[in-house]
Amino acid sequence: MKIICTDLEGIYLPEIWIKFAEKTGIDELRLTTRDIPDYDVLMQKRLNILKENNLKLKDITDVIKTIEPLNGAIEFLDWLRSVVQVIVVSDTFIEFATPLMKKLGRPALFCHNLIVDQKGAITGYNLRQKDGKRKTVQALKGLNFDVIAIGDSYNDVSMLKEAEQGILFNPPDKVKNEFPNFPVTCGYDKLKPLLTELIKT
Amino acid sequence: MKIICTDLEGIYLPEIWIKFAEKTGIDELRLTTRDIPDYDVLMQKRLNILKENNLKLKDITDVIKTIEPLNGAIEFLDWLRSVVQVIVVSDTFIEFATPLMKKLGRPALFCHNLIVDQKGAITGYNLRQKDGKRKTVQALKGLNFDVIAIGDSYNDVSMLKEAEQGILFNPPDKVKNEFPNFPVTCGYDKLKPLLTELIKT
Repeated sequence: MKIICTDLEGIYLPEIWIKFAEKTGIDELRLTTRDIPDYDVLMQKRLNILKENNLKLKDITDVIKTIEPLNGAIEFLDWLRSVVQVIVVSDTFIEFATPLMKKLGRPALFCHNLIVDQKGAITGYNLRQKDGKRKTVQALKGLNFDVIAIGDSYNDVSMLKEAEQGILFNPPDKVKNEFPNFPVTCGYDKLKPLLTELIKT
Repeated sequence: MKIICTDLEGIYLPEIWIKFAEKTGIDELRLTTRDIPDYDVLMQKRLNILKENNLKLKDITDVIKTIEPLNGAIEFLDWLRSVVQVIVVSDTFIEFATPLMKKLGRPALFCHNLIVDQKGAITGYNLRQKDGKRKTVQALKGLNFDVIAIGDSYNDVSMLKEAEQGILFNPPDKVKNEFPNFPVTCGYDKLKPLLTELIKT
């Protein structure tokens, strides 16, 4: 039986941190896993910036409330979930994702969580586990699922490699060029026929 | 991070085979995993009855189209998915479940699939794996989830035992009496506060 493991930001949602960077005018917050492959390095950088600027969880969730799914994402994900089981596997945090998942019809989400102090400052984060995307694919393979994985960035690559079929969706050029073995699709109108074919076989 | 593994029929939906038994008037089709603990024995019995009566997949799906979720199930499941991740783990078949999952808002479903011949007769079934409910809980534990499992019947017991916390929901008396170690709840209004407490801790 087939199952889809899919990334979240860049696939169905704009990058949350980029939106927050735009809102605050702090350019350094624009960096994502597309730019810094090591997630721990990236997150420590972000947390330092938040601290320096006295920004709290609520400042981020206020921006998140204004974010809408990418154009066509809701319809695409509805279609996908009507033909195959889907797990969203993301390096985001449940505190950020919950309002956005509602807008996407609440697909199952495997992600991380933040550590927040009594004043609402983000003091750290709990990775549910290291290399959680790849391990999710492994676990599903152990349950006799054939996994198709969809991602756009460095932190998706181990998941795409572990899956029976990995697909890069709207990736930046450097990810695309560095990993030429994955098929690349841009736009849901291209992704849909590819997945239809893969789910059938 | 918490996650819920929950059975489907008897929890959110009436038992599909019982509905089909009522429609066809074939009393033997009323047997479920609540009556015959060995799923293979039960399914072979069902398949033989279908063959004897020349009943096809379409005869069953026609009945399934008329089935509605249990009273309050849609609202309960919406609430549950707003506070925690949920995987429905069922011994049903994807061919039966798909239209019903749509009515439930398409939570992720781990189940089995049927083997259907060219004339639409059900000739067999593929278990995704043996003891799939327990193995799903094991796999999720391996992904560092704390699993809360909800079930009502014999085929749920290994899942309930494997979980950090197992809960019997609306179980028949003989299941309840045979497995007195699990808390028993009847009605979503009782299940909701129990889960709220368990998710918090």
